[in-house]
Amino acid sequence: MATETPATTESGKDPATTPDDHETGYLQPEIDLAALRSLLDGDYAEVRELVRKNLVENADVLEEAETLGHDEFRDRVRDVVVSVAGTGQTALGFPKAQGGSNSTGGAIAAFETMGFGDLSVLVKMGVQFGLFGGAIQNLGNEEHHAKYLPDVISGKLLGCFAMTEGGHGSNVQALETVATYDADSQEFVINTPTESAYKDYIGNAARHGEMAVVFAQLEIDGKSEGVHAFVVPIRIDNKPAPGVRIEDSGLKMGLNGVDNGRLWFDGVRIPRTALLNRFADVTPEGVYESPIESPGRRFFTMLGTLVLGRVCIGAAGNSAAKMALTIAIKYADRRRQFESADGEPEQLLLDYGQHQRRLLPLLAKTYALHFAQEVLTDQTHKAFSGENDDEDYRRALESRAAGTKALATWHSTRTIQESREACGGAGYMSRNRFAALKADTDVFTTFEGDNTVLMQLVAKGLLTGYASDFSDMDQLGMVRFVAGMAVETVVERTNVHKLLERVRDLLPGDDEWDQEAGLLDPNFHEAMFRFREEHLVSGAARRLKRGVDQGMEPAEVFSRVQDHVIAIGHAHVERLVLDAFVDKVQSLPDSDNKVALGLLLDLFALTTIEENRAWFMEHGRLTSPRSKAISREINSLCRKLRPLAGDLVDAFGIPPEVIRAEELLTWGDA
Amino acid sequence: MATETPATTESGKDPATTPDDHETGYLQPEIDLAALRSLLDGDYAEVRELVRKNLVENADVLEEAETLGHDEFRDRVRDVVVSVAGTGQTALGFPKAQGGSNSTGGAIAAFETMGFGDLSVLVKMGVQFGLFGGAIQNLGNEEHHAKYLPDVISGKLLGCFAMTEGGHGSNVQALETVATYDADSQEFVINTPTESAYKDYIGNAARHGEMAVVFAQLEIDGKSEGVHAFVVPIRIDNKPAPGVRIEDSGLKMGLNGVDNGRLWFDGVRIPRTALLNRFADVTPEGVYESPIESPGRRFFTMLGTLVLGRVCIGAAGNSAAKMALTIAIKYADRRRQFESADGEPEQLLLDYGQHQRRLLPLLAKTYALHFAQEVLTDQTHKAFSGENDDEDYRRALESRAAGTKALATWHSTRTIQESREACGGAGYMSRNRFAALKADTDVFTTFEGDNTVLMQLVAKGLLTGYASDFSDMDQLGMVRFVAGMAVETVVERTNVHKLLERVRDLLPGDDEWDQEAGLLDPNFHEAMFRFREEHLVSGAARRLKRGVDQGMEPAEVFSRVQDHVIAIGHAHVERLVLDAFVDKVQSLPDSDNKVALGLLLDLFALTTIEENRAWFMEHGRLTSPRSKAISREINSLCRKLRPLAGDLVDAFGIPPEVIRAEELLTWGDA
Repeated sequence: MATETPATTESGKDPATTPDDHETGYLQPEIDLAALRSLLDGDYAEVRELVRKNLVENADVLEEAETLGHDEFRDRVRDVVVSVAGTGQTALGFPKAQGGSNSTGGAIAAFETMGFGDLSVLVKMGVQFGLFGGAIQNLGNEEHHAKYLPDVISGKLLGCFAMTEGGHGSNVQALETVATYDADSQEFVINTPTESAYKDYIGNAARHGEMAVVFAQLEIDGKSEGVHAFVVPIRIDNKPAPGVRIEDSGLKMGLNGVDNGRLWFDGVRIPRTALLNRFADVTPEGVYESPIESPGRRFFTMLGTLVLGRVCIGAAGNSAAKMALTIAIKYADRRRQFESADGEPEQLLLDYGQHQRRLLPLLAKTYALHFAQEVLTDQTHKAFSGENDDEDYRRALESRAAGTKALATWHSTRTIQESREACGGAGYMSRNRFAALKADTDVFTTFEGDNTVLMQLVAKGLLTGYASDFSDMDQLGMVRFVAGMAVETVVERTNVHKLLERVRDLLPGDDEWDQEAGLLDPNFHEAMFRFREEHLVSGAARRLKRGVDQGMEPAEVFSRVQDHVIAIGHAHVERLVLDAFVDKVQSLPDSDNKVALGLLLDLFALTTIEENRAWFMEHGRLTSPRSKAISREINSLCRKLRPLAGDLVDAFGIPPEVIRAEELLTWGDA
Repeated sequence: MATETPATTESGKDPATTPDDHETGYLQPEIDLAALRSLLDGDYAEVRELVRKNLVENADVLEEAETLGHDEFRDRVRDVVVSVAGTGQTALGFPKAQGGSNSTGGAIAAFETMGFGDLSVLVKMGVQFGLFGGAIQNLGNEEHHAKYLPDVISGKLLGCFAMTEGGHGSNVQALETVATYDADSQEFVINTPTESAYKDYIGNAARHGEMAVVFAQLEIDGKSEGVHAFVVPIRIDNKPAPGVRIEDSGLKMGLNGVDNGRLWFDGVRIPRTALLNRFADVTPEGVYESPIESPGRRFFTMLGTLVLGRVCIGAAGNSAAKMALTIAIKYADRRRQFESADGEPEQLLLDYGQHQRRLLPLLAKTYALHFAQEVLTDQTHKAFSGENDDEDYRRALESRAAGTKALATWHSTRTIQESREACGGAGYMSRNRFAALKADTDVFTTFEGDNTVLMQLVAKGLLTGYASDFSDMDQLGMVRFVAGMAVETVVERTNVHKLLERVRDLLPGDDEWDQEAGLLDPNFHEAMFRFREEHLVSGAARRLKRGVDQGMEPAEVFSRVQDHVIAIGHAHVERLVLDAFVDKVQSLPDSDNKVALGLLLDLFALTTIEENRAWFMEHGRLTSPRSKAISREINSLCRKLRPLAGDLVDAFGIPPEVIRAEELLTWGDA
């Protein structure tokens, strides 16, 4: 942001130093705080209130993260997790048969709200109920459910999700742990084949977990059937189970209340029924059976359960951004520094144009992501409840979950950093919350899928039109797939051409649509977002194809086009976010709140266009004067939002007890 | 970076997926590592080697930051500081009379190199020798030197630099602590007038400091003479001195080996000679005397001693960036992930185009900042040695120090973050170094001057041509000053017009200079940087003037033009950095190293232009095709630098003992 340079009009008139004309007659809205908060809480207001209550109940854990010893704090976090489980909060997403309410949406909303609290607690709950419990629920059969889920839900049985290995972070298909079927004893034998093939960063492994869902290559009679999940005891009476070696992963940048560990397996025998067999099974005689024919698709169907983790992490990431902005904006609305007319107090930080520019576009994007998350939560709920489970729907959902997670967690990292700097030295003190916020969220861009890899996944889906053999295609497969088609076919297949048709519907005027529409015309925003997405997809398809046609190695082609491919992911997800925000605002009855949300929407849309204005100019969709006018409009929107900013963060409904940062929020009260 | 989108040419030819034509005939250089390292170490190779030896000697402290208790670690850091002092390292910058070598340059180079080690040690040394010792040296007379400096240099007397107050971070002129002269007893009486006017974040205050240089408003007979510095005992026999209240500032995000504290003074009496009186004194009778007439200039002359702190923090920030890149690049050059031709091992991370794009432009900027820092160190040395001490020189130096500090520390924050993410989950483990690197450096963008405020300072200097009353002008003063002149006068005064003259000299061709020059022509780079700087300065002057002319309040004018003002700071400092890098490369005899540095220089120049390409397009200095060609050229430069990247980070000469991160650097060796 800091290098953005403002604009003067060619005519010499300088609206950025004169009152904006269109401000004449503009009525500044007043926020109805209760209504806005209720809108944000949405369908799951009750769940969120329960979580807020639990957060306040356990607010001490935020301070204890600093005062307790390493193991003490881990135990304390475990206790909080178990105690929250006692309130029923963690049962939400599980089957009714096990005392849950089968509400995936409720579980996501709960996790999202937990993002306001200590994030070790959040992540330990994610490991226990989302990953460990979720794997049993989604990959296991009803006997597995009955046997394990009640104790999982209550926190009596703590467990791990043992997927990642030291040698293979993002490339799960290549992991090395092996489960060999022994038909004589009707057991699987789990082995870590080399010293470096240990399971790494496994939450709950170092101290508390008794059981693990272990992902391993299934081998029967020397034949590999690909990666499958097994329930394996790893700790008995507080000691590693026979054949299991456990090491502590060691101190981390943050999240030190979660006991991540490493696991090695040496001939660990588990019964045949320990295979989570919803998608594939082995008969007692050792015959492999699966309703899904392609091993690749089978693998990705199993991995599809990861979608929930990604949905949750993206949501929690945005909650962390809300926390950071709540502190920074409320501080800037109290703190005075420099500059006063004679005798007047110093000026409030938030009255500085640059300070508005730093924080308010981030606030707008946080709102945009909130509503995008709401749509994603709803779609995930429908997929998991079976309300909508056809394969296309599921693939689009996986892509959306991956992309939203990447966008939201990058946004979170950036927002927390900017907010910390905006609070100066006080922002550096642990009690003022940013220390934990920064350290704990930092890994969000990496876990549940590295953001860069996730954005490639999104692009791959678009480029191949979610081709039926998409799932087992790696990047080189994608290059070959795209190269094998006519570019027109790619564009035709991918639905991307619909984007452009829609642009023409929105803004008639042929090739001049971008020049004639008003800057605040929502159709202009949508047209710009869609044009960018379509152009990037078809452009990347052309470049991939041309590279291969010219005889370059697919790996080299991919490497050279990779930044273009990743840009597709950004453009696509940003368009989905815009659509969600537009739909939400349009659905509201007229009110001041609608006006205020409209300002945020405009700010989000124009800031995104501004960030990409070089690209739009390069592609003939933005003239210089118009580009400068956008920057001026953004400044004007910031000035309109400035008096609303305090209410807009209050509407997030973060309990004061978990904000801490008293020093920042009560500045000058003394 | 991630949203950068690549380009295809209008003609349909796509150089980004075809081998670059101009690569034909291009000879890949081979780095002469010893020569490159010696070039980087420069004039102070001997000092740097001493520091490296001390770093290795005390390398354990990096791990102890994680294993020791809070107070234990603080004491350990103190012991390291004292032990390093015993090697003579910390005497370098002090007068020969006190056993120093009067080498400000050597002291800066030492501090820069210390940036490879634990940063609590670095900052505690900065507090002790730079701020506390530096204040006595630069603000005191020879008696103060003789009385205090020997014990300061040896670490026997630990002290504080008590400037910042709770209520006033950046606005030092407004601080509230008062020193009242009592002519009867010939003493000053130090008081904290309100509970909230405590000195805050004061290093060495909470545990180890016995003495503090306290900045307070000097009052004589009810008249305030502005802020002055006094030597005040704060701790005797490990207890607060009479009248002094000390509190621990509490846990911080990082740098927890430094004992920051809060100080309150209640009628603390110190002798008249405790005033550091180089720039102003009080006679025994209570008459105020100063060779500097203007109170504002006097204040800023005293503050001028802060310049050294800024020079040092910028340097250390870039060292932290070097550390992060060393780890991330060496890891990416070993770590394989995804994608392999059949039977081949997975591809190295650094062979991915996106990974090159993430890291190599940051490497280029780190090199650029290194050489810019070298120039700044040299200029600072000359100012402090008295070799060059006229006022204009000093003001330009202060501006340069402020801007370089801001640019380097923002670069450091960004580079560390990008490098952490590029190392995935392993980058999140404390033993792999990024945890401390991130947490400890985070405040660099804030302390010794908030970066945003510093960039304003740079712009203010340019806009007012370092006017003689510049020093005591706040932002509103600047607005009024600029408004009071004809814009032509501003431009004339500021030397900015010389920028444009130089552009015309460099690239004849009238208004088409930007279109005709080759993208790798250094004159093109310089012309673009200078055009931007000039245009921003004169544009901002016009907007400020117009705003006031139109009757807007100066505060409102400033708020609206603030992002433009800050953009001036960026443009100016980036141009200085480019100039320093160009001068360095041009000064080298022909060699492969020169070719390699030339690639880095081109990459730095083009990346900076690319980051601002929207601005250049808006201002008619870049066409779409040329903008896209720049992005392609950057990708091509990254591919050329890729095989050199390992050597380019090795040349920083970071001792392996302080890198830690063994897991990342030896990946796959097992």
